[in-house]
Amino acid sequence: MATIESSAPPSGMRDFLPAETALRDWATSVIVKTYESFGFNRIETPALENINLLRKGEGGENLQLIFEVLKRGDKLERELSCGSVQRHNLADLGLRFDLTVPLVRFYAHNQNTLPNPLKAIQIGSVWRAESPQQGRFRQFTQCDIDIFGVKSEVAEMELLQATSEALVHLGFKHFTVRINDRRVLAAIASYCGFEPSRVETVFIALDKLDKIGLDGVRAELIKHEHPAESVQKLMDLVQSIQSEAGGTPALPEAQTSSFAATRAKLPKELNVEDELNRLGNVISVIEEQGAGVYDIKFDATLVRGMGYYTGQIFEISNPGYSSSIAGGGRYDKMVGKFSGREVPACGFSIGFERIISILLDKGFKPPSAAEKIALICEPDRDDMTKVFAAARRNRSHGLIVSVQPRKKDMRKQLDVLVAQGFTSYANFRADHDQLDIKELNQGPE
Amino acid sequence: MATIESSAPPSGMRDFLPAETALRDWATSVIVKTYESFGFNRIETPALENINLLRKGEGGENLQLIFEVLKRGDKLERELSCGSVQRHNLADLGLRFDLTVPLVRFYAHNQNTLPNPLKAIQIGSVWRAESPQQGRFRQFTQCDIDIFGVKSEVAEMELLQATSEALVHLGFKHFTVRINDRRVLAAIASYCGFEPSRVETVFIALDKLDKIGLDGVRAELIKHEHPAESVQKLMDLVQSIQSEAGGTPALPEAQTSSFAATRAKLPKELNVEDELNRLGNVISVIEEQGAGVYDIKFDATLVRGMGYYTGQIFEISNPGYSSSIAGGGRYDKMVGKFSGREVPACGFSIGFERIISILLDKGFKPPSAAEKIALICEPDRDDMTKVFAAARRNRSHGLIVSVQPRKKDMRKQLDVLVAQGFTSYANFRADHDQLDIKELNQGPE
Repeated sequence: MATIESSAPPSGMRDFLPAETALRDWATSVIVKTYESFGFNRIETPALENINLLRKGEGGENLQLIFEVLKRGDKLERELSCGSVQRHNLADLGLRFDLTVPLVRFYAHNQNTLPNPLKAIQIGSVWRAESPQQGRFRQFTQCDIDIFGVKSEVAEMELLQATSEALVHLGFKHFTVRINDRRVLAAIASYCGFEPSRVETVFIALDKLDKIGLDGVRAELIKHEHPAESVQKLMDLVQSIQSEAGGTPALPEAQTSSFAATRAKLPKELNVEDELNRLGNVISVIEEQGAGVYDIKFDATLVRGMGYYTGQIFEISNPGYSSSIAGGGRYDKMVGKFSGREVPACGFSIGFERIISILLDKGFKPPSAAEKIALICEPDRDDMTKVFAAARRNRSHGLIVSVQPRKKDMRKQLDVLVAQGFTSYANFRADHDQLDIKELNQGPE
Repeated sequence: MATIESSAPPSGMRDFLPAETALRDWATSVIVKTYESFGFNRIETPALENINLLRKGEGGENLQLIFEVLKRGDKLERELSCGSVQRHNLADLGLRFDLTVPLVRFYAHNQNTLPNPLKAIQIGSVWRAESPQQGRFRQFTQCDIDIFGVKSEVAEMELLQATSEALVHLGFKHFTVRINDRRVLAAIASYCGFEPSRVETVFIALDKLDKIGLDGVRAELIKHEHPAESVQKLMDLVQSIQSEAGGTPALPEAQTSSFAATRAKLPKELNVEDELNRLGNVISVIEEQGAGVYDIKFDATLVRGMGYYTGQIFEISNPGYSSSIAGGGRYDKMVGKFSGREVPACGFSIGFERIISILLDKGFKPPSAAEKIALICEPDRDDMTKVFAAARRNRSHGLIVSVQPRKKDMRKQLDVLVAQGFTSYANFRADHDQLDIKELNQGPE
C-alpha cells in the first residue's frame, strides 16, 4: 500500500476528477462569457515571476507564503560553495501568490501595445504555502477582472455589474454587495483621533467586525494601546451605522433611504462630501440593475484587507455563508510603483473556490450539453471501419459517442456508463449497417 | 527605463496579450469540444508534484530540467544548518515537466473512484528549465488525451481519429499520420544483430532520420561502435522501406497497397505478424475516416523519443513544417510502476505551442462571436442609471457592450476601439432613452 500512499498529490493540493472538473469548467465558462459581454478580454501571465518582484511588497502577509524556486546549474553551485549559504539567495523565481502583482507587472511591461482602457479577465492558479492542516489549499484558482486607465467611477459600476451578473448566471441571488471608500474610512479614523501612523492597526481590527463583533474590535484596539477616547468615539459611530445597515434586506426604495440615512449619521467634519456623492452615484446605478435580484448597500465600516486600495472598495456576501464570495476596489497608486507612471486601476475578484464549494454544497450539477452514447463493440468480430464510421456519423449530429470494447461482465460495464452520465448504449449491427441504440438503466438484453 | 526592463516576465516565459489569448482560448475550446464528442473528460492535477515522484524516472532528459521548489521554514533551516549543504535535499516539490507522469500518479491515487475505462483530457502548463537562448519556452501548454484500461487497439483508433479530427477542426488538412509499433522496431534491431542491452542508442540514432538523413544515422551508429555488419543491415532495410514510404501522399487505394508493400519488405524472420495485423487494422479504420482530408501511413522507422512506449506509436506531421504537430503511443507498463497493478494505457499529445505558432504564422484570426459596441458616456452629465440599463438591454440581445467615458481626443479613442475589434460605438440619447449606434471606421460626427 506504500505505493498507493505515495501517489497522493502534494499536501494541500488537489486532483480534480471528471465531475468536479466539469463543474469548474462550467463555472469558468459562465464567468468568462459574462465578462466578455462587458467587453473584457482574457490575458495571461506566467505562473512564475522573478523572486525580487514578488518580494517587492504589496503582497502583505502573502509574502511569507511564497513557493520559491531553487536556482539551477552554476548559479546554484556558486551560492552553495559560499562559506555560509544565504537562504535569501538560493531562489531566483517564485510562484505567483495572487493575480494582481503579475497584472501590474504585465501592464507596466506591455502598456505601449495594450489598449487604453484595458479591461482584463484573469482566471488562473495561484500558490501559497499555507498550513494545509487548517483546510487551506496551497494551489487555488483566482478569478479577477480589472480595468486600467479609467479614473471615473464608470469603472466601479462596470466591475460591480459584471461581477454581480456573473454570480447571477452561476445561480446566486439575494446576495448583498457592500461598498465603502477607503477615504471615508481614513476620515473616520482621523475624526476619532487615531494616530495617522498607526491607522493600519485600526483598519485591521475593524476588518474583523463581522467575525469578532464590536466588543472584539474594542478589545483589539485597546490591546494595541490606542487612546480610550478614540476607541469609544469609533465604537459609538460604528454602532450608530450598524443599527441602520443591519436588519433585513431592504426593498429598492428603502435602500436609497438606507444610503441617505447612513450618510446622515456620518459627522459633517469628515469632509468627504465628494466621495459620498460618488458612492451614491454607484449605489443608485447598481440598485437599479440589481433590483429584485441582489442588493447593494453602503457600509462605512467595510475595510477589505489589502493595503493597496486607494478609493472605493466592495465585497459581496451570500446569505447563509459567513465569508465573502467576491471582493475588490480601486488601487490607483500601484501601477506607478512598477512603471513610474501612475495609471488609474480598479479590480474585482470572485472567490472561485468558495463559489465552487457552495455549488458542491448545494449538489449543483452543470447542465450537460449532449446525449451521450457508448458504442459497445467486439474488436475481433466487428467490422471496425463501419463501427468507427457509425460513431462519426452520430457525432456529426451532435451526440457524444464513445467507442468501447465489450467487457465480459456487461451489466457492470453498463453500470459504469450510467455513473458517468451516459444516456444510452449501442451495438453495431452489421446486417443493418447501423446502430442499435438502447436507453440506459434498462440493463443488457 | 530600468523599471520598465525589470517588468519583463522571467526569461523564457511569456505574457499573453488579449489577441493571442483569444487565439489560444479558441484553439483550446475547439480541441476540448472535439475530444468531448468522443466521450473524453477533462481532469486536472496540481502544477507541483513531490520532487521524489518527478525524479523517479520515466522523464528521460527532462529530469535535468525540473524547476525545484525550495523547502520552507524549519525543514529548510535544518538543511542549511548541516555542515555541508546537500543540493539534492533543498527541494521537496517540483513543477511538472509533462502531463503524463502526473496522470499516472493521479490514476494510481484515484483508480477506485475513476471510471474504467478512463478517457482523460488534460490541457495545462508544464515547466522545463530549457535554455531560452535557443528560443525554447520554459512554460508551455501541453494538450493530451489518454485512455486507461483498454487493451484492444480500439484505444489507438479513437486517439488517432479524435486527434486528427481536432486538427481538422483547427483548420489543418493534408497532414500525415505515421504509425509504427515499438515491437516491430525491437524485432528489426534484433534481426540486424544489435546487442539488446545497447538497443536504446540505436533507436535514438534512428529517431533523427528525418533531421540527419540515412548517412547521419549511419555515422552516429558507427560512432557508438555498433558492429558494422548490423549497421549495414539496418541501413539496407531502412533504405528499402523509405523507397516505398517516400513519394507523394497516396490515394486511399494506393495507401492500402503502401502498407502491404512496406509489410512485404520486412523480413519474415522478424516474427511480428500479430503486431503487423493490428497495425493493418488501425490503418484501415483511420484511412476510411480520413479519406480525402488526411493520410495515415505505416513507417517502420518511426521511433518516438520516450522510452516508456510498449506498443503502437504515432506521430503527425504537417506539410511544410519539419517538426511533428502531435505524437503518442501505448505505454502499458507505466501505471504498474506507480500502483503495483498493470493497467493498459495509451495517449496522444497535440503540440499545442506548435499549432498556435503555425496559426499565427498563417495570420489566422479566430471567428469572433458577437457584435461589439462601445457605449461612450459622459459620467458627469449623463444619467448613468439609464446608460447602464441601455448597456444591459443590448447585452441581453447577445451584443458585447463596453461602457467607456468619453475622452477629449475622441478620434484617437475610436481608433483604439477599431484596433480592439469594436464594430460600432454609441452615445446615450437621454431624449430618446435609447442608444444612438454608429458603425465604426466612420469617425466621430
